Amino acid sequence: MQKIPVGVLGATGMVGQQYISLLRNHPWFEVTYVAASPRSAGKSYRDATAGRWQLAASYHPAVGDLIVEDANDVSRAVAASKAGKCAFVFSALEMGKDEIKKLEESYAAAGIPVVSNASAHRWTADVPMLIAEVNPHHIDIIPIQRKNRGWDKGFIAVKPNCSIQSYMTPVWALIQSGYEIRRMFVTTMQAVSGAGYPGVASLDVVDNIVPYIGGEEEKSEQEPLKILGEVRGGAIENAAEPLISAHCNRVPVVDGHTACVSLEFGEKKPSIDEIKAVWSAFRAVPQELELPMAPARPIIIREEADRPQPRKDRDADKAMAVSVGRIRPCGIFDIRFVGLSHNTVRGAAGGGILNAELLKAKGYL
Amino acid sequence: MQKIPVGVLGATGMVGQQYISLLRNHPWFEVTYVAASPRSAGKSYRDATAGRWQLAASYHPAVGDLIVEDANDVSRAVAASKAGKCAFVFSALEMGKDEIKKLEESYAAAGIPVVSNASAHRWTADVPMLIAEVNPHHIDIIPIQRKNRGWDKGFIAVKPNCSIQSYMTPVWALIQSGYEIRRMFVTTMQAVSGAGYPGVASLDVVDNIVPYIGGEEEKSEQEPLKILGEVRGGAIENAAEPLISAHCNRVPVVDGHTACVSLEFGEKKPSIDEIKAVWSAFRAVPQELELPMAPARPIIIREEADRPQPRKDRDADKAMAVSVGRIRPCGIFDIRFVGLSHNTVRGAAGGGILNAELLKAKGYL
Amino acid sequence: MQKIPVGVLGATGMVGQQYISLLRNHPWFEVTYVAASPRSAGKSYRDATAGRWQLAASYHPAVGDLIVEDANDVSRAVAASKAGKCAFVFSALEMGKDEIKKLEESYAAAGIPVVSNASAHRWTADVPMLIAEVNPHHIDIIPIQRKNRGWDKGFIAVKPNCSIQSYMTPVWALIQSGYEIRRMFVTTMQAVSGAGYPGVASLDVVDNIVPYIGGEEEKSEQEPLKILGEVRGGAIENAAEPLISAHCNRVPVVDGHTACVSLEFGEKKPSIDEIKAVWSAFRAVPQELELPMAPARPIIIREEADRPQPRKDRDADKAMAVSVGRIRPCGIFDIRFVGLSHNTVRGAAGGGILNAELLKAKGYL
Amino acid sequence: MQKIPVGVLGATGMVGQQYISLLRNHPWFEVTYVAASPRSAGKSYRDATAGRWQLAASYHPAVGDLIVEDANDVSRAVAASKAGKCAFVFSALEMGKDEIKKLEESYAAAGIPVVSNASAHRWTADVPMLIAEVNPHHIDIIPIQRKNRGWDKGFIAVKPNCSIQSYMTPVWALIQSGYEIRRMFVTTMQAVSGAGYPGVASLDVVDNIVPYIGGEEEKSEQEPLKILGEVRGGAIENAAEPLISAHCNRVPVVDGHTACVSLEFGEKKPSIDEIKAVWSAFRAVPQELELPMAPARPIIIREEADRPQPRKDRDADKAMAVSVGRIRPCGIFDIRFVGLSHNTVRGAAGGGILNAELLKAKGYL
Repeated sequence: MQKIPVGVLGATGMVGQQYISLLRNHPWFEVTYVAASPRSAGKSYRDATAGRWQLAASYHPAVGDLIVEDANDVSRAVAASKAGKCAFVFSALEMGKDEIKKLEESYAAAGIPVVSNASAHRWTADVPMLIAEVNPHHIDIIPIQRKNRGWDKGFIAVKPNCSIQSYMTPVWALIQSGYEIRRMFVTTMQAVSGAGYPGVASLDVVDNIVPYIGGEEEKSEQEPLKILGEVRGGAIENAAEPLISAHCNRVPVVDGHTACVSLEFGEKKPSIDEIKAVWSAFRAVPQELELPMAPARPIIIREEADRPQPRKDRDADKAMAVSVGRIRPCGIFDIRFVGLSHNTVRGAAGGGILNAELLKAKGYL
Repeated sequence: MQKIPVGVLGATGMVGQQYISLLRNHPWFEVTYVAASPRSAGKSYRDATAGRWQLAASYHPAVGDLIVEDANDVSRAVAASKAGKCAFVFSALEMGKDEIKKLEESYAAAGIPVVSNASAHRWTADVPMLIAEVNPHHIDIIPIQRKNRGWDKGFIAVKPNCSIQSYMTPVWALIQSGYEIRRMFVTTMQAVSGAGYPGVASLDVVDNIVPYIGGEEEKSEQEPLKILGEVRGGAIENAAEPLISAHCNRVPVVDGHTACVSLEFGEKKPSIDEIKAVWSAFRAVPQELELPMAPARPIIIREEADRPQPRKDRDADKAMAVSVGRIRPCGIFDIRFVGLSHNTVRGAAGGGILNAELLKAKGYL
Repeated sequence: MQKIPVGVLGATGMVGQQYISLLRNHPWFEVTYVAASPRSAGKSYRDATAGRWQLAASYHPAVGDLIVEDANDVSRAVAASKAGKCAFVFSALEMGKDEIKKLEESYAAAGIPVVSNASAHRWTADVPMLIAEVNPHHIDIIPIQRKNRGWDKGFIAVKPNCSIQSYMTPVWALIQSGYEIRRMFVTTMQAVSGAGYPGVASLDVVDNIVPYIGGEEEKSEQEPLKILGEVRGGAIENAAEPLISAHCNRVPVVDGHTACVSLEFGEKKPSIDEIKAVWSAFRAVPQELELPMAPARPIIIREEADRPQPRKDRDADKAMAVSVGRIRPCGIFDIRFVGLSHNTVRGAAGGGILNAELLKAKGYL
Repeated sequence: MQKIPVGVLGATGMVGQQYISLLRNHPWFEVTYVAASPRSAGKSYRDATAGRWQLAASYHPAVGDLIVEDANDVSRAVAASKAGKCAFVFSALEMGKDEIKKLEESYAAAGIPVVSNASAHRWTADVPMLIAEVNPHHIDIIPIQRKNRGWDKGFIAVKPNCSIQSYMTPVWALIQSGYEIRRMFVTTMQAVSGAGYPGVASLDVVDNIVPYIGGEEEKSEQEPLKILGEVRGGAIENAAEPLISAHCNRVPVVDGHTACVSLEFGEKKPSIDEIKAVWSAFRAVPQELELPMAPARPIIIREEADRPQPRKDRDADKAMAVSVGRIRPCGIFDIRFVGLSHNTVRGAAGGGILNAELLKAKGYL
């Protein structure tokens, strides 16, 4: 099988690096186009990231030789596309929200599908916000999106905020099994890599935590409702529940967002054992399709009293699984648990790649 | 004024060191008796803590010269008491709960009041569990306790778990102002000093957090009910509410426990401004009595978006104030906030000293 | 005694904040003038530092009310000076080296003495680079400096790089006692506060160290030679030795630079006991003059096997003492030891204040 | 090829876990025997390590089912050996030095070769202390060892201390290329995993470093001389140089020891470029034999100004390569550089496995 040539926008940033690294030996996709800010444009990817590469893992030598293009110049991508070098792009753009919105639309309008990590289009009515195991059927909005905008081949699909992925798959597994979830308290302890580089100042996290991350609580409370919503009448209609209260904190951890979650069920309330059974058995479309980036078990239950922990559990199953533990009754709601996932893999680049695999398998790429 | 000679049991441990350090220049109390495990007994306090002293602050040279006694041998304290060297003891004992229970009773029975930091007697019906700003009136149980046990001068008074002190004073200030609190979600991020030395292994908190602290959630959910209870019919009767759900985590912070709290009020619901007014104005018995260890303002409101933070706020007002911030509406309950206090000062030795000052001012010492 | 009104240039930055904090209750000096970048100018100091204040300790309320001036506008300081509000300035300017150089000269030319923390003028031949305990006699260059430049009241005095202060006082004490030091290996492990705020990215120091600090090794190898030099023929003539090799590392510590040092003596070689005797007995001009910021003992010897340590020793004696330990033979040179001092107090603002106290006591302010 | 059945002594400890993890899919060796303290004996390996497993990577399910034997009972290993379940053992024993010495001898005497990680036999004259890339020829002492002790099949081979492996391969590469090294200053910054679990207390490394590791400096100064020595007259004769001065520090890093090194050459002094050429080209016996655990390039040169760094470089080439950087002239000796290797892989279990591979390839196993 010939690999599909893909581009990465924002390729030199933190999430862009993670894309480049994860795609190194991907069986379906091959990075053949990289674009970033004008500052990096014209340099080889190797030179553009020299002294700025943040990951322990490295990139494919052939990507190091690629010349970085200016991400603002869509015509370069179109030319690459015509030359068979850019069938679609992963967007890891880091700029103003409005700028990203317009730029991603320009790529799509030019016939280049955009699988995005950015938050800009998360609340655009005809753009699906995908967690591949939770709402893969939301890709059905894409033909409507194309029609709405008069786009032919292009489209935009996004993924949600990184931190909600530490608990939304378990939450969805329960809902799907018939257990309505009415209300949900979440407190997150989030890794510094989530803020990019240089991101969080070391003076803020050596012997310290910061009980605030701008915009994060709002995202955590609202995005799940779109993800749990339904495609109806040409738009994605939000779910009515659960009602969510989120408190988001920054802690001195490199990678891995941890969440303490309390759930209030509707009338049908599962026992702890039933919850564990649901989570152990949970498999979804990515697993059925055997997508390359899909974890074998999307939810891993840790039985130890003190797990999951970021350093020990974030890398589970290619860093794509959600680890859960401490499943126990809640004194106020019904049950409590701790969820954890890798924020720059499952919650960012890895999740984006899985979305692209889903879109490819479903014929959109 | 002649200083009162006091003893410290468990003087070589982490909390014991904090007592010794904080009492260095105390205007009322003077450390003249130190006791610890048989291993330390017979050595000077200086030698017994050589290479084990954990604090940046040091101890009074005169304490360094004291010979450490065996804490199990109550007769030594009795002799010291008779020699005018030990009017009462602070207990920072670290041993099995049942052993501490019996040993503290032996001291009290021998006529030596015990102001304890240990958890052993927290649920003993006739023992007050004091936060000096919250339930100072619980000391009224002491005459009953003495009568119950046939003790003459001795008695036992304890303080609650360190982590609840990051939010119980603010919670009490609201209750006292007529705002009933029905339910309460709490997620704590606790400092490593709370586990003593060596305590938490560095492999557990470098690039990691641990979402579990043995016994801590149970204490956090139950102790507030006794503290908010009333002395009735010769015992302390627990309050009926609030119902509490607590999730306790260990984070890489030296000192300072942070808590994310959501409150559900009864019918009367304060506005954010009313809450701030209550907290700003709050003063209690320790402030009225101008106790030496009492913070001038028990509750300090931080208006910055990202405060309180452990490294910046734990030392506020002799490390005895509770700092609060991020006071905002909660999507599920009524309001949310972040509370923070110094766990080994406000939550341990400093709180114990304040309790002793209260007991002294009220004539019990 | 009426306090001397002083100004702080760069008052809103990290070192500026440390100046403001340390001068809170200074017996001689009172902050009555603050200046910073045009961005802060016109705001009250309180507003200009809201959400940017990095220290646990706070500032004097009266300073919070001061209106921040534009540091580039020397005429404002001159006006303040005439109004009795700015007898001299502490410079904690953060801008390009050449800009600082010119700006500090402008203040001095305008009759306002500059006691600087910046590196800009460290290598200006007629500017003294002072560690008050080591080369206080270098202030004798000031009349020459004034004459060279036609300045009347103004002058510039600077202090050296923060990290060398963890070992230069002990090194000087030995030299002064007649033990020539020929060569010296130094490896430093430096705190993140040394890089200001935001400074070092958290991704660089969570589960990591960085074995490089730009320019630091060069400063560490060269500055001691000027400090150990002599005022001769209207200039400061560098000392010929010791020859120094420095390796500087950034480690996850908030405050406190630690240095591992090996010394090769000349023909006269002290024993370990002689070294300890020299260091214990060492007192210098700031101690003789009883300057307010001077530590009682400039060098504190720790006898424990594993000290000094930054968290436990950096605050010794108002954070102005140098702590040393592990004094032992070196397999290659003669002796080895570990030195430690607080980089933003002893190594920055505290050292600057001590220099000003020295200059005041000697009649230059 | 049928895999060789191997045992791991001390299998439940930190290094033991690393052995079990690294051998998970080893092409030559298969773990079929595990032994630990009597406390673990009788349990399955899964149960014995439940809640104590420290690594992110896991073990082979079949190893989880193995019953842990008592490491003190050599007869159990002999029985396993006869049953084809234990051809040799990796020793990761954690007990007193004398106990380990005797126990390892008992295994060898019983015909079971011991490839050890422990320090007990490092200075036994007829026991080779191997870094496979540096002194593979020292295995020639094994026939002599067997003869000395009347052992038939058994023998003991050890590896040196973890921290010296961050620079000994580069040092050896230069020596082997004809550049005599006379003297060497080394300052290490060592990871907490080197102390095992629980090991270093978190209070010692949150906002702190510890400038002392018991016994480490002595090992660092002496072990290289044996490694660089020669098998002569039935014993390993130490090399006469380099003379080494080591200063060892503990820093808040999970894995990866970093070393700042200065080298003084003999008369023949390489240029920086020559050094880089030697290191880039260096390949040794493990590379020639294509041993499974051997890194392709034993020495990786980083050209960035601020590398190597533990978090980014420790995992290079299966965590078996040494990364070097900052190669530059030294103000006192000839050159300086920073070396880094993974302490529990290259410096412990991985190095032990590589030694076993070498011994197998050379016909000793």
